[in-house]
Amino acid sequence: MTDGAEPPPPTGRRGLRTGRLEAFSDGVFAIAITLLVLDIAVPGGPQPELLRTVAALWPAYLAYVVSFATIGAVWLGHNAITDYLDRMDATFVRLNLLLLLFVAFLPFPTRLFADYIGADRPERVAATIYGIVLLLTLTLLWGLWRYAVREDLVRPDAADEEIQLLTQRLTPGLGGYLVLIAAGLFFPVIAVIGYLGIALFYILPVPRRWWAVRRSRRPAQRGPGRSRPGDRRGT
Amino acid sequence: MTDGAEPPPPTGRRGLRTGRLEAFSDGVFAIAITLLVLDIAVPGGPQPELLRTVAALWPAYLAYVVSFATIGAVWLGHNAITDYLDRMDATFVRLNLLLLLFVAFLPFPTRLFADYIGADRPERVAATIYGIVLLLTLTLLWGLWRYAVREDLVRPDAADEEIQLLTQRLTPGLGGYLVLIAAGLFFPVIAVIGYLGIALFYILPVPRRWWAVRRSRRPAQRGPGRSRPGDRRGT
Amino acid sequence: MTDGAEPPPPTGRRGLRTGRLEAFSDGVFAIAITLLVLDIAVPGGPQPELLRTVAALWPAYLAYVVSFATIGAVWLGHNAITDYLDRMDATFVRLNLLLLLFVAFLPFPTRLFADYIGADRPERVAATIYGIVLLLTLTLLWGLWRYAVREDLVRPDAADEEIQLLTQRLTPGLGGYLVLIAAGLFFPVIAVIGYLGIALFYILPVPRRWWAVRRSRRPAQRGPGRSRPGDRRGT
Amino acid sequence: MTDGAEPPPPTGRRGLRTGRLEAFSDGVFAIAITLLVLDIAVPGGPQPELLRTVAALWPAYLAYVVSFATIGAVWLGHNAITDYLDRMDATFVRLNLLLLLFVAFLPFPTRLFADYIGADRPERVAATIYGIVLLLTLTLLWGLWRYAVREDLVRPDAADEEIQLLTQRLTPGLGGYLVLIAAGLFFPVIAVIGYLGIALFYILPVPRRWWAVRRSRRPAQRGPGRSRPGDRRGT
Repeated sequence: MTDGAEPPPPTGRRGLRTGRLEAFSDGVFAIAITLLVLDIAVPGGPQPELLRTVAALWPAYLAYVVSFATIGAVWLGHNAITDYLDRMDATFVRLNLLLLLFVAFLPFPTRLFADYIGADRPERVAATIYGIVLLLTLTLLWGLWRYAVREDLVRPDAADEEIQLLTQRLTPGLGGYLVLIAAGLFFPVIAVIGYLGIALFYILPVPRRWWAVRRSRRPAQRGPGRSRPGDRRGT
Repeated sequence: MTDGAEPPPPTGRRGLRTGRLEAFSDGVFAIAITLLVLDIAVPGGPQPELLRTVAALWPAYLAYVVSFATIGAVWLGHNAITDYLDRMDATFVRLNLLLLLFVAFLPFPTRLFADYIGADRPERVAATIYGIVLLLTLTLLWGLWRYAVREDLVRPDAADEEIQLLTQRLTPGLGGYLVLIAAGLFFPVIAVIGYLGIALFYILPVPRRWWAVRRSRRPAQRGPGRSRPGDRRGT
Repeated sequence: MTDGAEPPPPTGRRGLRTGRLEAFSDGVFAIAITLLVLDIAVPGGPQPELLRTVAALWPAYLAYVVSFATIGAVWLGHNAITDYLDRMDATFVRLNLLLLLFVAFLPFPTRLFADYIGADRPERVAATIYGIVLLLTLTLLWGLWRYAVREDLVRPDAADEEIQLLTQRLTPGLGGYLVLIAAGLFFPVIAVIGYLGIALFYILPVPRRWWAVRRSRRPAQRGPGRSRPGDRRGT
Repeated sequence: MTDGAEPPPPTGRRGLRTGRLEAFSDGVFAIAITLLVLDIAVPGGPQPELLRTVAALWPAYLAYVVSFATIGAVWLGHNAITDYLDRMDATFVRLNLLLLLFVAFLPFPTRLFADYIGADRPERVAATIYGIVLLLTLTLLWGLWRYAVREDLVRPDAADEEIQLLTQRLTPGLGGYLVLIAAGLFFPVIAVIGYLGIALFYILPVPRRWWAVRRSRRPAQRGPGRSRPGDRRGT
């Protein structure tokens, strides 16, 4: 794409590939998040008291918001991870596919929960399955990041504290899900509200961190002595 | 991506992020707008008079056109907003997710309206719910833009009158929805036709404004004295 | 994105906008083409003779192939059009939305045809409706291109014969649909096979034209005297 | 996009087109892979033993994983192919559409298999149909690559052994499907597990080949004597 004196840097090609992985992942995230609405349906037949019927669908709305927030949070996390990446390797791409397998699966436990809340035993089963799928999704996101850090795929100009910060952000959610899955055996609705809490924990707080902290460091790096993409951290 | 003498400008990175937010948002817009067709269905069983059956689906077509036009209008507005943006911050990205939550939800009230028109009380409920979701969607689009302006995320070379113009464009729709929601308690079909009118108000008029006004100013700015991306308005 | 001595050319911005319109359009095309499969369904209940049941679904497969080919052809045509564009204006974007409204609507008449073939009168109605939606879709694609040519949105380095070639390609399909819609009143299945023929006419023949003819001219233009993006044809 | 002294290289335009074909293909891959979840559904009515009901859906999960892995593998292969491409021609674009026709069709045989497993004769029919669609999909991917090689669309700096490697990777799967389709007439579930094996064969092994082998060669090519995009192999 460039045509200066130097030959195109290797990042050119990498960028293309990263681009396609991101485009494909964004597609799956966007579709999974939008298919959730298909799980909300008014039962067939005439509904003289439509307002009451629609209000009675609250578990479907709750499940919609929980799954929407979770996929949104995972998308933000995925964004943060790929944003730190310098390059990808074959395993990273495969792990990413595995993560997407669970993201794309989420509409199923969402519907399950929306359909069976109110029925005593089924709602416990549904909340537990829901929590397990959410836990596995976050675990894979966490694994994707751990793998990238361990295999040194992270951009060399990323400070160590930033890398640790992202790791520290991802970890508590895993414990949270474990606690809530256990709690869901007794209080399924509370567990699901807790799942929403975890998603909001990733979406809401620490403003100006995941997204903005790196920008604030940018100006200091803009001199000619800025580290080149080819450098390795610690060299 | 470039490799001239100067280091890459900060916009390079920002572009990437803006790109992913736009790609994800475009995905959700495109999917939500295309899923609307699933709400149009001929009732099962043999239909000897298929033409009559298909004609009787007019509420579904009306709802399809209204929701399609509304999502199209919100997409155009979203385009106009991100086009003015110089950068994003964490809150902007979260507000954008909240907007998408309502965009992705729109197929549900669309189907509700298509299914219950003709039944006296239910159609009023359906039209009201429809209007409230549309109102919330536009409110969030409006809030996204207000936030961007207040936090000074707008590109420094955007003229103040352009910013005001976009604000003035977004505001009347909010009042329009409020009036129509009230009217819908008595005349639900008329209210829904009014919702279409609001969407067309955003899609049709003021040609060469949202999209083209900025291009016409471009030539005048191409001299070497053009403001740099790093500048702040008012500095 | 670039950072040489000259200020960024106006194409930079235009590219971004064209990019988003293309991304959104590609999304709608891709989703509409993929949703078609949802219209193919085995009737519920046990099916001891599944092979016979699956074979009996041939109208659904035919409709799937026809609609897939048509959307594919429209996508190719849309590609050819935006590829010739130098810039877009507000009306072009709105016409594009109107085209997408029909593209996204196509799964409905597709399902209608798949469901009602075999029943004498309904299949004629379904084939006619199908043909009318296909005709409107191609008409809008044709209108998009005519508008672009009339408003001089086409890239200045596009030769007049190329522009005429694309126009000549798009026109006969319109007449073809009109003839087939009339024929469909008597022979619905033959009409639908004819719709497939029109789509294949756009997909298959004239190889190395829509896509490749312009590349073969490229080398001759690579000298320093190559026309600049800012030039107008005929100036 | 660039703006140096030289005129934009022909790759600029090609990149755009490749970009749209990739974006559209990625869209179809992403949607088809995400629609698979809609085939997993708990039968209606109260389910006091929901855990048992959900467990009894194992054929649906198996089919989900098989189809997800297959589409993922085809996406990886498609990625590898377009990554080697120097340019596209009209036929390549059409072959690609034909591949997508089968990718988008995959949710149907997936659902068929999930629904009819357990019923003796229907499950054999379903497994056979499933295998044939998978075989056709891989055949088209293989044909796409053969066509690209034969028509010399491959980038000139791709080593012959790399090209052969990709060909050798794609071929055994075709034989594998043939064997499994035959086996599926007697042991349908085993055949479907075999389909998963083929997909994993493409996804898992030979790490650092499809994706990474070319990167390791890059540094050696970065001198000024690097082959230019305009060169042909063997010249």
